[in-house]
Amino acid sequence: MLEFLKLFLDQLQSPTLGFLIGGIVVASLGSQLAIPDSIYKFISFFLLMKIGLTGGIAIRNSNPAEIFLPAVAAVALGIGIVFISRFTLGRLPGIKVTDAVATGGLFGAVSGSTLAAVLPQLDSAKIPYEAWTAALYPFMDIPALVTAIVVASVYISKTTGNASEKVEIWPIIKESLQSSAVTALLLGVALGILTKPEPVYESFFNPLFRGFLAVLMIIMGMEAAQRMNELRKVAQWFAIYAFFAPIIHGFLAFGLGLIIHKITGFSIGGAVVMAVIAASSSDISGPPTLRAGIPSANPSAYIGASTAIGTPVAIAICIPLFIGLAELLLGR
Amino acid sequence: MLEFLKLFLDQLQSPTLGFLIGGIVVASLGSQLAIPDSIYKFISFFLLMKIGLTGGIAIRNSNPAEIFLPAVAAVALGIGIVFISRFTLGRLPGIKVTDAVATGGLFGAVSGSTLAAVLPQLDSAKIPYEAWTAALYPFMDIPALVTAIVVASVYISKTTGNASEKVEIWPIIKESLQSSAVTALLLGVALGILTKPEPVYESFFNPLFRGFLAVLMIIMGMEAAQRMNELRKVAQWFAIYAFFAPIIHGFLAFGLGLIIHKITGFSIGGAVVMAVIAASSSDISGPPTLRAGIPSANPSAYIGASTAIGTPVAIAICIPLFIGLAELLLGR
Amino acid sequence: MLEFLKLFLDQLQSPTLGFLIGGIVVASLGSQLAIPDSIYKFISFFLLMKIGLTGGIAIRNSNPAEIFLPAVAAVALGIGIVFISRFTLGRLPGIKVTDAVATGGLFGAVSGSTLAAVLPQLDSAKIPYEAWTAALYPFMDIPALVTAIVVASVYISKTTGNASEKVEIWPIIKESLQSSAVTALLLGVALGILTKPEPVYESFFNPLFRGFLAVLMIIMGMEAAQRMNELRKVAQWFAIYAFFAPIIHGFLAFGLGLIIHKITGFSIGGAVVMAVIAASSSDISGPPTLRAGIPSANPSAYIGASTAIGTPVAIAICIPLFIGLAELLLGR
Repeated sequence: MLEFLKLFLDQLQSPTLGFLIGGIVVASLGSQLAIPDSIYKFISFFLLMKIGLTGGIAIRNSNPAEIFLPAVAAVALGIGIVFISRFTLGRLPGIKVTDAVATGGLFGAVSGSTLAAVLPQLDSAKIPYEAWTAALYPFMDIPALVTAIVVASVYISKTTGNASEKVEIWPIIKESLQSSAVTALLLGVALGILTKPEPVYESFFNPLFRGFLAVLMIIMGMEAAQRMNELRKVAQWFAIYAFFAPIIHGFLAFGLGLIIHKITGFSIGGAVVMAVIAASSSDISGPPTLRAGIPSANPSAYIGASTAIGTPVAIAICIPLFIGLAELLLGR
Repeated sequence: MLEFLKLFLDQLQSPTLGFLIGGIVVASLGSQLAIPDSIYKFISFFLLMKIGLTGGIAIRNSNPAEIFLPAVAAVALGIGIVFISRFTLGRLPGIKVTDAVATGGLFGAVSGSTLAAVLPQLDSAKIPYEAWTAALYPFMDIPALVTAIVVASVYISKTTGNASEKVEIWPIIKESLQSSAVTALLLGVALGILTKPEPVYESFFNPLFRGFLAVLMIIMGMEAAQRMNELRKVAQWFAIYAFFAPIIHGFLAFGLGLIIHKITGFSIGGAVVMAVIAASSSDISGPPTLRAGIPSANPSAYIGASTAIGTPVAIAICIPLFIGLAELLLGR
Repeated sequence: MLEFLKLFLDQLQSPTLGFLIGGIVVASLGSQLAIPDSIYKFISFFLLMKIGLTGGIAIRNSNPAEIFLPAVAAVALGIGIVFISRFTLGRLPGIKVTDAVATGGLFGAVSGSTLAAVLPQLDSAKIPYEAWTAALYPFMDIPALVTAIVVASVYISKTTGNASEKVEIWPIIKESLQSSAVTALLLGVALGILTKPEPVYESFFNPLFRGFLAVLMIIMGMEAAQRMNELRKVAQWFAIYAFFAPIIHGFLAFGLGLIIHKITGFSIGGAVVMAVIAASSSDISGPPTLRAGIPSANPSAYIGASTAIGTPVAIAICIPLFIGLAELLLGR
């Protein structure tokens, strides 16, 4: 619990949340600061391309035969987590469905730093795992984000459309796949898989990513300031969701991992990695994608839930939990 | 004097002044080159955030107890230098008050490279100084720039307002503190002090700073080309100010440093550092801040004065002068 | 031939062509992705400044006495190649003159990577050459690009102007030299020669170049998608030109190099370098310059010709060809 509080305070100082809060404060004080819209559009394109390229390069460097079943499970989890949030958090009183779907997208998406935290702890605990398990993350990350955008678009079309008409779902899905957010994401994935973008990735997309993300956080903070009232009455629901979601998603993934372990001999350590990937929520790939893809969702809801509560829970509770379960199963 | 001329020629080749002159030449030749306004706004935001972050990180890493009195002196000098310029240079015939205030802001602001030049020379001369003295610079730099923007705003409101009405000063000060320039600067300071922005600072704001500054210099040069006529009749006053101001500011700071030496045992070497900080004028933090905060001031006036004359005087005259005085006081 | 095919496939995976094809595919699928115009303008300015600075710095670091005659030959080749293309490729049925001129500009411009490929092969073959020969490239690169822009502007003015009037050529040349593309290019050259922009170049223009070029390629690909039909009937002419042009340009340069060898003792290895510089076509400096300077030319024509065919021919055929000729002349 003490460790949880320490992580919580650390997260408040992290650039991602720090710049978001900075934007909120600045806007609340009536500043005239504004980032031009064309800059926002470019930053958004840049971040989504980078997220896609990272995923695409990871997929290209993985072994298709070995990774197949775990990757299918990761895709299913990424999609499933969005629907779980849609039909649990999204049904709670006062919660906007688009906010719930965006939060689900963020909790389905993956945090690289949480992933980076579990691997050395598995090494210390001498639990073996396949080296390629880290390459599972784009298979959960990108489907979760795309699913969230599509589900939100379908929902918005249904509620705003004329109630007497039947809403055609396929055109809406097609349209949200053609949106600039999803296009940039999938273009990045495709270029990462099919071409060799490493020189561009290493000299441009990777080094500038954190900086442009920080600028986006200020923009999102300034927006969030105007929408704080929306949250006041429902913040407790986001907090409860953010506390339990990582644990539940982790168990779902650990269970699937154990089934694949029975079928293919996938290691138990690999199942732990998959559980932590599912438990983690993204403060990197998620915010820019959801801001561009679901502009009507409230960033302070989904980023607050993920960064302030979800990530500390994933690191401080889920990692030791699933490593402990693995040791139990390994008979230590 | 020979060294002064050499430094003067070096400065003409420095990227800052080189790109400014490039912009002037290009515009004079009737080029259609133009940098979009949204890009200018982002560059300006970027540079001011970087300047603020640098200052904020330096303040966070300093020891509050030790630095307190010298920091108060630095703030007083930064503010005082602007008012000195307002009521000396600004009173000379043909000089626009906004140009004088902006020039004062630039001479109150600090040049990191002049600061970097004095430290090894103190080491060579075996004059001891506190390691944290370099952290004094944001305490002079940022107050000088903010004061210049506020003083210019108040002046502009007074002269353009209806003469029969009394001008309310506080709303103007509040408004200039809420301006995008000052907001970005102070937001950077706050994030530098309260969060841990080092990963973003090292990967984004620091490496790209020089480049965006160069682009800004071209933009400012192109503007300056249209305003060269304004300067023709008054250039000698800027030159005289730029020659004497570093020496006078240096003596004021050295005097304050010696008083603090008597009170707290602050080293004489530290007083030299403070004198050189006051003598230096900024070709880094100043131009973008003043361009954004006092758009009506003429950049060729304040940058020309600072970069072409102020900086060579600070390096070639003030550094040896105050090191010599320190050796005299140390009885060598 | 096998090596040629391998290089051809490699080129399809290169970031430059990969991102171009990505843009084409994305636009063909009806994506709403769009890069704001102000971003395009800044990227264009950035790339042209970088190309100019690279050239200017190379010129500043070269020895004027030694380089004079080879540099004059390089300028003549750069200009000549544009006119050759204008009056061969540009006369073929169905070919637009602006596309032919732009393609000539790209084949006159120089590929740094082709240049980088020949130098170690000369070393392996123990053929001596002057170390400064690599500095010849801006003397061919920049005149070719500027000539292409001027020739295209004159042509466009003549065809769109009233047939009964005589077209004044000088105003058009002056106007195209004042265009933002040529201004940025020549401003970069001037700053590279006259100032010391290395700190800005190393921290900003050089590291970000590949990334912004990749973004430009996506923009150009999205445009090219709408203009694919134009090419269908004439693609074979571009392919034939792209296959033979590097070899012919290489022989012209090799001949001029041998003449200078007779006059000044310029090495035969240096003549090989000059031949390969002429044989190479630019996938780096060319596309952004021509896109900004000749917006009416079809990027899929000139980039396709250069990157997919011209560069593999230059590397796989011209380098061994001219090294072989040099060994023959050296009597080995």
